[in-house]
Parts: sequence; C-alpha cells; structure tokens
Amino acid sequence: MASAKSRLSKLAAHLVDPSSTPTHVPPASNDPLVIDGHTRGTSSWFNYHSQTPTFFLPRAATIEPDAVAIYHKSADDKLLTKSYSQFAQKASDFAYYLKKHRYRRIGILCPNTPAFLYATFAANAADGVVIPVNYRLKPDDISYIFQHSDADFILVDAEFAPLLDNYRAAKPHVPILIDDDAADESGAFGSALAEGAAYDLQHGSQGWEGLTSLADDELAVNALTYTSGTTGRPKGVEYTHRGCYMSALGNIIESGLVFPGIKRAKYLWTVPMFHAMGWTFPWAVTAARGTHYCLRKIVYAYIWKLLREEEITHFCAAPTVNTLLCADPNAQTLKQEVRVIVGASPPTAHLFQSMTQLNLHPVHVYGSTETYAPITRGYDMPAYHELPAKEMYGRLARQGHGFITSLPVRVVRTGDDVVEGALVDVEKDGKEIGEVVFLGNICARGYYKDETATRKLFAGGGLHSGDLAVWHPDGAIQIMDRAKDIIISGGENISSVALEAAIVTHPDILECGICAVPDEQWGERPKAFLTIKLGRTITYGDFIEWCKEHPAISRFMVPKECEVVKELPKTSTGKIRKNVLREWAKGNRNQESE
Amino acid sequence: MASAKSRLSKLAAHLVDPSSTPTHVPPASNDPLVIDGHTRGTSSWFNYHSQTPTFFLPRAATIEPDAVAIYHKSADDKLLTKSYSQFAQKASDFAYYLKKHRYRRIGILCPNTPAFLYATFAANAADGVVIPVNYRLKPDDISYIFQHSDADFILVDAEFAPLLDNYRAAKPHVPILIDDDAADESGAFGSALAEGAAYDLQHGSQGWEGLTSLADDELAVNALTYTSGTTGRPKGVEYTHRGCYMSALGNIIESGLVFPGIKRAKYLWTVPMFHAMGWTFPWAVTAARGTHYCLRKIVYAYIWKLLREEEITHFCAAPTVNTLLCADPNAQTLKQEVRVIVGASPPTAHLFQSMTQLNLHPVHVYGSTETYAPITRGYDMPAYHELPAKEMYGRLARQGHGFITSLPVRVVRTGDDVVEGALVDVEKDGKEIGEVVFLGNICARGYYKDETATRKLFAGGGLHSGDLAVWHPDGAIQIMDRAKDIIISGGENISSVALEAAIVTHPDILECGICAVPDEQWGERPKAFLTIKLGRTITYGDFIEWCKEHPAISRFMVPKECEVVKELPKTSTGKIRKNVLREWAKGNRNQESE
Repeated sequence: MASAKSRLSKLAAHLVDPSSTPTHVPPASNDPLVIDGHTRGTSSWFNYHSQTPTFFLPRAATIEPDAVAIYHKSADDKLLTKSYSQFAQKASDFAYYLKKHRYRRIGILCPNTPAFLYATFAANAADGVVIPVNYRLKPDDISYIFQHSDADFILVDAEFAPLLDNYRAAKPHVPILIDDDAADESGAFGSALAEGAAYDLQHGSQGWEGLTSLADDELAVNALTYTSGTTGRPKGVEYTHRGCYMSALGNIIESGLVFPGIKRAKYLWTVPMFHAMGWTFPWAVTAARGTHYCLRKIVYAYIWKLLREEEITHFCAAPTVNTLLCADPNAQTLKQEVRVIVGASPPTAHLFQSMTQLNLHPVHVYGSTETYAPITRGYDMPAYHELPAKEMYGRLARQGHGFITSLPVRVVRTGDDVVEGALVDVEKDGKEIGEVVFLGNICARGYYKDETATRKLFAGGGLHSGDLAVWHPDGAIQIMDRAKDIIISGGENISSVALEAAIVTHPDILECGICAVPDEQWGERPKAFLTIKLGRTITYGDFIEWCKEHPAISRFMVPKECEVVKELPKTSTGKIRKNVLREWAKGNRNQESE
Repeated sequence: MASAKSRLSKLAAHLVDPSSTPTHVPPASNDPLVIDGHTRGTSSWFNYHSQTPTFFLPRAATIEPDAVAIYHKSADDKLLTKSYSQFAQKASDFAYYLKKHRYRRIGILCPNTPAFLYATFAANAADGVVIPVNYRLKPDDISYIFQHSDADFILVDAEFAPLLDNYRAAKPHVPILIDDDAADESGAFGSALAEGAAYDLQHGSQGWEGLTSLADDELAVNALTYTSGTTGRPKGVEYTHRGCYMSALGNIIESGLVFPGIKRAKYLWTVPMFHAMGWTFPWAVTAARGTHYCLRKIVYAYIWKLLREEEITHFCAAPTVNTLLCADPNAQTLKQEVRVIVGASPPTAHLFQSMTQLNLHPVHVYGSTETYAPITRGYDMPAYHELPAKEMYGRLARQGHGFITSLPVRVVRTGDDVVEGALVDVEKDGKEIGEVVFLGNICARGYYKDETATRKLFAGGGLHSGDLAVWHPDGAIQIMDRAKDIIISGGENISSVALEAAIVTHPDILECGICAVPDEQWGERPKAFLTIKLGRTITYGDFIEWCKEHPAISRFMVPKECEVVKELPKTSTGKIRKNVLREWAKGNRNQESE
C-alpha cells in the first residue's frame, strides 16, 4: 500500500502547472490516404454509405421476406396482403418501368394505397423524385403543382383521375398512368408492373442490384411535397435522402416502432401519404419491418374494427381526427396499447386524457411540411406524473423538445423592433411569445424554384415555422397560435389554441374553432365555432356564462360571438381551416374545401 | 358513372407507347443558391447538422435535467448518483480544463467509472480525440499505445496508475491526472474539474455553448481504440463522429433502449468502456436518457444484486460472462425483462436457452473493434418460434444481418484461388465457408499511422473481419471461427465454435475452449479445455463416449485430448484466448493475461 501511495505521489507531480504553456504540440492529422480511388476522410471512403431511406425496403425483404408488409382493402373491396418480398418486387418492377421510360419526376395523385407505397420507393430507386399531391386541392392547384414541379409522369388513382382534366389540357404530352387499385392488378398499373418486370428480365434480372437503393449524394432532393398554399400558390418543399432517413430513424425511436422479440408494428395509414411524405412513415415502418395498413379514406367504424381485430399498434393523426375517433359510437377501450402519433395542430389536455382512457397513448409531436412533419416531441416525464391529472395532460400537450435526430428548436423574437436577419431567443419564462425556428438534419432544403420564398424561410439562419410559441423554463416549447391566427384584443394576445383547449372541456362541446372578428372597442375579439356532442344541446347565454367562470378564460378572452355548426372546415391532415372560419364569420359560406 | 368511365378511357390514351422515346426532358437541377455564405445542397446549408454523438449529453441535460444519469459505487465504497444536469456540468468542467491546457489527445486508463464517462464527452467537446486503453494489457503495450497515439494527456484511475511507470520513463513530459474515484471528488480529478469550472467562469460562463457539441466535420476522427494485438503490436482503430453517432442510434433501435412513457433504460456497465468505446453505449444510453450503472469490476454477486434491486433493463456482455452469470449461485429468475446485448464471441444455443429462463433476453450482436463493436444482429423471427426449442435457439445464435444503420454484411471467398482485391460472395447455402466483410457508416476509418494495415483491412473494397462464416439461404451469416482458429483435420474444416457449442450441452460442463493440436495422421485435431460445473465431475472416457454419441459431433470432430482446468483464459471482453490455449496445449502455462 505504501508503495502504491508513493507511486501515486510521484505521478501526481506530473500534473502540469495550470498556468504554464503546454509543452506538447499535437501532431498534424494524417496524411491523405488513397486506395483504389477512395480518399480517406471523405464520403468516397469505405466507412461511408449515403443515408438513403429507399435502402430500408430491399433490406427488409432480405431479412424477413415473408413478413406481412401491406394489408389493404382494395377499391373493389377485396382484402389483399403483400409480404416484404412481394413489396420489394412490386417496387422494383415499377422502378424498371420508370427507368425504361426514363421518367424522373414522378407525380402521384392517390389515396393511401399500395401503389402509392410502390411508387415512392420505385421513384427514388429509379433515380427519380417523388411528387405527391393532395387530391383535395382544387383542380387548378393540382394542375399548377404538376406543372411547377416539372412532373414528367403521373400516377393517378382512378377515383381522382377526373381531377387531372385541367392539367391534361395544359400538358397533353405528359403520360398519366391510372391505378384502379384492383386486388388482382388487372388494370393499367398492373400492366406497367409487368412491363417493368419484363424490362428487368431483358436486362439480366438484376432486381434491386440494378436500382439505386443508395443515392450518390445523400444531400440531393428525393421528394417535393407541396404546401397547401392557403396564402398564394402552393410551394414545393424540397426533401433530401438524408433528411428522410434521419426523420424516419427519429420516428422509429420516438414512436417506438421497433419491439423486442418477434412483435412487429402494425401501422394504420390514417395520415395522408401525400402530406409531408406521410411524415416519413413509408420508410420508418418499412425499416421496422412493420405492416402498412393502407386506407383509402377515413371511416371511423372501419378504423375501430382494425384497431380491435387487427390489433393495430401505431397510427398518426391530427387532434381533430382523434377527437372524432374517441367520440365515435364504436369507440371502446382496446386490449393492446396503441401509440398514436398526434401532430399537425396543437392538441388539448382534454383530448389526451380521453385517448389514454381508450388505451390510445399519445406520442405528441409537432412540425410542419418544411420539417418532414414531426421534429419535436412533448416528452413524457416522471415529474409530470406527480401533478394532478389535468395539469399532467397539459404538460404532455406542450410541443416539447427537438427530436433525437434534430437540433434543438428555438423560439425567437418577432415584431417591428427585431433587426432583420438576427434571431434572438425569447425568455424561457413560459410567457414571452415568439416564433418557432428549426435547424439541422430534419429541415427541408428549401422551396423548389422559389429563391425568394427560400430566403424568407431561412431568414436570419433558421427555418421559420410561422408558429407562435412560448418557451418554458424546462426548455419545452408550447405553441400559442399560427402567427396569422393570434387574436389581438385591446393590446392583449389571445391564443386561439389555448382558448379552444379551454372550451372543449365543456361537457356538451365536441370541437371548437376560434377566429378573430372585428370589434370597435377592442380591435379584435374571438368568435367560437362549435360542434356539439351527439344528443346534447347548448344555449348562447349558458355557454358565455360558463366561459366567464372558467379559470383559464380571462374576461377579455370570452368570445364575443358563438355559433354551433354541423362540421368544422378542416385540411386533409385535420387542421381547422381558420381562413375558412374567418370567411364564415364575414357571412361567406361558400368556401370550397382546401 | 358513364362520364367517369369515358374520362378514364380518355386519360388512358395518354399512356405512352412503351417503345417510343419520352418526349419530356427532365429539367436541370436548381441553380446554386447562396444565403449568407451558406450554399444550398452542401453541408454548409441550414438543413444539415453534423452527426456528433457528443450532442446527446447537452440535449439530455436540457430535456430531463433531473433524470438519474449515473449510479456508481466509488472506489471508497460510497454510493453516488449524478443527474443529467450534473453529468453535463462535470463533462463541461472537464472540457474547459482540457481546453485551458490545450490538451487534444486524451488518453484514458480507467475502469468503468464516472470519470471515464466525463472524459469521453469532455475530450470531444474540447475538440480532442479520446484514446481509451485496456488496463489489462502489459505495461509495455500500454506505454506503446500512449506513445503511438500521440496522447498529450492521460487520465488514469488510481488503481492502475502504477501501470504507467514504463510510459513515464519514455514520456516524462506528458501530464498524467489521477482519478481516485472518490465519491466526494476530493482528489486531483476533482481539482481539475474545479479548475475547468473556474476557467469557464473567467471566460463568460458559456458552459456547453462554448464547447464543441457538434463537430465541424462529422467524418473526422473522434476516438482511437486499440486492438488487443494478439499478433504484433496493437493497432489504433480510428472512429469518427458520424460512425459513433450512427452506431449509437443503431444500438438504441436494435436493443430497445428507449421505452414508451416515463420508463428509462437502466444500463449496467459490464462491458469495458475502453473496449470499442464501450460499444458506443456511452452515447447511446445518454441519448436515451437512461441511467449508466458504472462498475469498477465484474463481481457476479453484485451484478445479481443490481439486476434484482435496481431492476436493470440492459447490459452488454460476452457469452462467457453470461455463462458465469447464469451459473452463479445468486442467479434467479428476474421479475423484469432484461435485454442482454450478447456479443464479442459466438454464443451457444444452450446459453440463450439458459438466459431466457432467467428473464435475460439475448439481443445477439456481432462485430469487431473495427465496426464500433455491434454491426450485425441475429434477429428473432416469428418462423423460428415454430421450430423445436433447441433449433430455435440455434437460429438466434446466428450472427444474422447488418444493423438498421449499416449496409448488409457479406461473406466472401478466401484462399489461394481468390484473385487479390476481388471480393466474391460465397454461396448462400449455409455450407461454403468464407470471410465476413463489412462496409458503410459503422465501419471504422482505418488504423492510425498504419497505411499498410489500413490497405490490408480494406483489401478489395470491404472491411475484412478475419472471421470465417457461412451464409444461410435466408441471408443470415453464422460465424464458424476466427480465420486462425479453424482446425483443419484430414482436409475437413472443424469449426471450434460449433464444437464448443455442442460440448457445452453436456450436463456437467460449464465452459469449453477448443484449439488445434498437431496430429501425425490428420494434420490437426481438436483439443478441449473444459471447466466443470460446481460439485460435478467428469471422466475422460465418459466424455469422449458422450462426444461420439452427440448428433452434432462428427467422428473427425471428436477431441483428441481433453483437459479440465479451473478457469479459461479470456480477454477483457470475455473472448476465450485461443492463442493462450495453444500455448497451454504445448505445455507452456506461464502465459500472462492479455
């Protein structure tokens, strides 16, 4: 022991005097080493592969060829399933079809069908770009998007083919392929698959070996997803291979898509695949070797049937979809735990509580088309569970922190006194309202062919969300409103999101949408559009009294007007369309949907 | 309906004739766009952040500052815990200490202590490289490594400080800091932390904001881990930020480190942190905001206590460690499911069966120091569970497929008839034996200052493992042996791994290590070194008879000699040291450990 001690003291003497200059100069980094044209330390070296989400499909098909990849009730009402081996084969066949015809910019106008999945993987595998379009847009906007995006080929579901009349007139030479979503693939899409398979056969049957499952450049664009364009024309958001890959890995981790043992995710396609590339779940579910439960449209009775009988484990949906799902007569507490990735607009604490009671466990995420959808998560924390239930669910309804594969999000000052281009954080006090900005791998590259909008998107060096939020002392952000939806009443900011969250705790109210109406005295005041629960009624006077009594509704927040409607206007992802509410408030009821 | 039909047929006419040339030429990609010096489509753009695992620590401390990050029984036998906020603070303090002294190449000679974790994050945060060294090496090798790696600073645990005598003589000017691993941080290491904190304070208290949590270049080297060098001098394996990041994300997904809800991983540090950077779990566990249960040494009774009382959820360990753990008198079936990441040498089906009975569920991985440790996983498949138990566990004991964040692994032909530099796959028949090669993001960059060895490592364009394997029809690989351990007897290949796996099913045998001994008639034949279960005995004759009867042991595989020993010689990670067994077989029993 004495010997060890004396050794230690001798060694301790080697500690340098902190004030002295170090004597040792670190060596320069290694000389460049080149082997067979590969340069060490660059992306040409052997320790690099490009982060490409397409690769997850041939990988899944190799590891677990017989696993059920796709479950779908086709347009002709037949049940079809595809194994991973079949899924990979179909995508490969379609990729060879695209290669044969040299199509590179692949438009898609389809609901959530197997063909959409095949085309997503096939387009990238054939060195092309995926351009999915929202079939609920006006034909004029659809036409605009396919032209603006330079689509050189369009895959359209038979149901939506008539929407292309406008486009065909403008672009008569761009080929259009119709998928009739028939279980036996007897139509034009099936013929295209057969043609692709034959083309591969003629060229040595290379299958996925002859396709691009790893992009040459992971930073290159692999998809264009268009914003809904409520103000001005839709903009084409540029996605990259690396962005989709890191977003998909983030979604796998954050929503727990991989189980231990032999259990596999059963993912129900409630969110449109055209919206932000289905939040990158075409790739995430495939990487996890889960089953894609395709879905042509939202029918709550059928969703409950699948939840119950197929033991769905995951789905993504906006708060409004979850509200209607929970209120559906078929709702029942499930025996399995379902992870529900809730995003697209701010949820209420009330909703999370209702969902949890049905064994639907919210994974609360937030993002935008420009962030591949989810980029933050309202993490569940042990400390929250020591709070009263209401407060706990309130914490879970915060938008939270950047994903594991993202940089942290920030909330920055807005307004006239902010110097152009400088991003200054708001106080982390849960009070000061600023704009949410993002940075890093799960941010989009910009807008296609729109330099001005791209410059504006990244003004000051961060991706501007257009959402207003507070930053809590624990670093979690909480969205107050879209910048254009906030109501300014007598100098006070009223968060329509917070007001809606308070109002839906009323026992007779199902949903609430708030917008501003002009007020001579206060500038603006809120108007509430309400939907009522089945078999309930409500009177104006009682409702206003109830609002005045509600602890979270200050006097200046009490709605000036309120109106009961049959249905609230919503986007394809389930966001309440505030611009339509504003029109309604003006008396204009002929607003088209999206 | 008729109208829709006619519209469809009109649209169908737009399908191009497959034989015609497409009329549409895809547009060139976007013109370059530069904003404030950032160029779109490059890594300087806003949609890019460098994949740096160091970032996971400040992220964890922001999101969940009070979560328990570290649990440790210190060298002075006191229990200490650190929150994520404290962990991040200590690492920051140490980083500022390193920055103050401009140390850039940080040697570490420590067991699995909190100081090791702090130093790992601190070194990278201070723009330095981590150089952890195996304290079980000969002092001469330790000295060689610290010199070869150009370490300009060494952190040493007091217990191992005497091992540096040799090095001090050669490099008297390189400072050495001793960590006495005292709970109250009263020693030199604690003073260094205080000094770093003071330095930060003097320079504006920037904390992590002033450190490098995101590397400038994700492809740059962040760590050097040395091979054990059983043949020749140890080689310094170059790790990169991106490699560690993708390996850590892979480990999170593959071993299920993230739970839904508020449950957090409790990770027990059974694998040495110096070995392949602790298989990148310092980063993976931190990213998952789990608790690091540090461990100065392997004491099975204490491990069982932690498993039982602390409800550990994960640990990594070689098969031999698991064998001894299962055989320990304290073994008992745990109430929680534990995921045990089993790697470092091929496990037996028998072991997996024993582990599962104790609620220790194997996550079977395979890799090498050159692949950040785990790079393949023997995936559990539904189809396996339809097989008899023995066969099912046999399937799970295969090394399987490349990780979710890796490229697929290959098995390529070896031998004299193989053209230098060309990698040709073996048949996927489960019979032809070849060498395992790796490629992609979780491969190391090469060997530090050793161009010849780097060229050899990547000969033909793949990272050579030196392991021999067969490739099964389902794409799973199965290791037969290290190239130098395979036994060639009368022209037949005998896999020592397969023979060991068969022998340990004997009811009285605990462990088995096989090596070749010379044989006049057959060239080589196997010799078995055995350890026996507590209270059991075995005779040579009975053992040989048992081998002859065993269905998996062909006549030519039956050991020529067998010897019962008290303990098998093992590496720090628990691999059986075949080179020592070969010496023992020659009668040389004075082999030092590693």
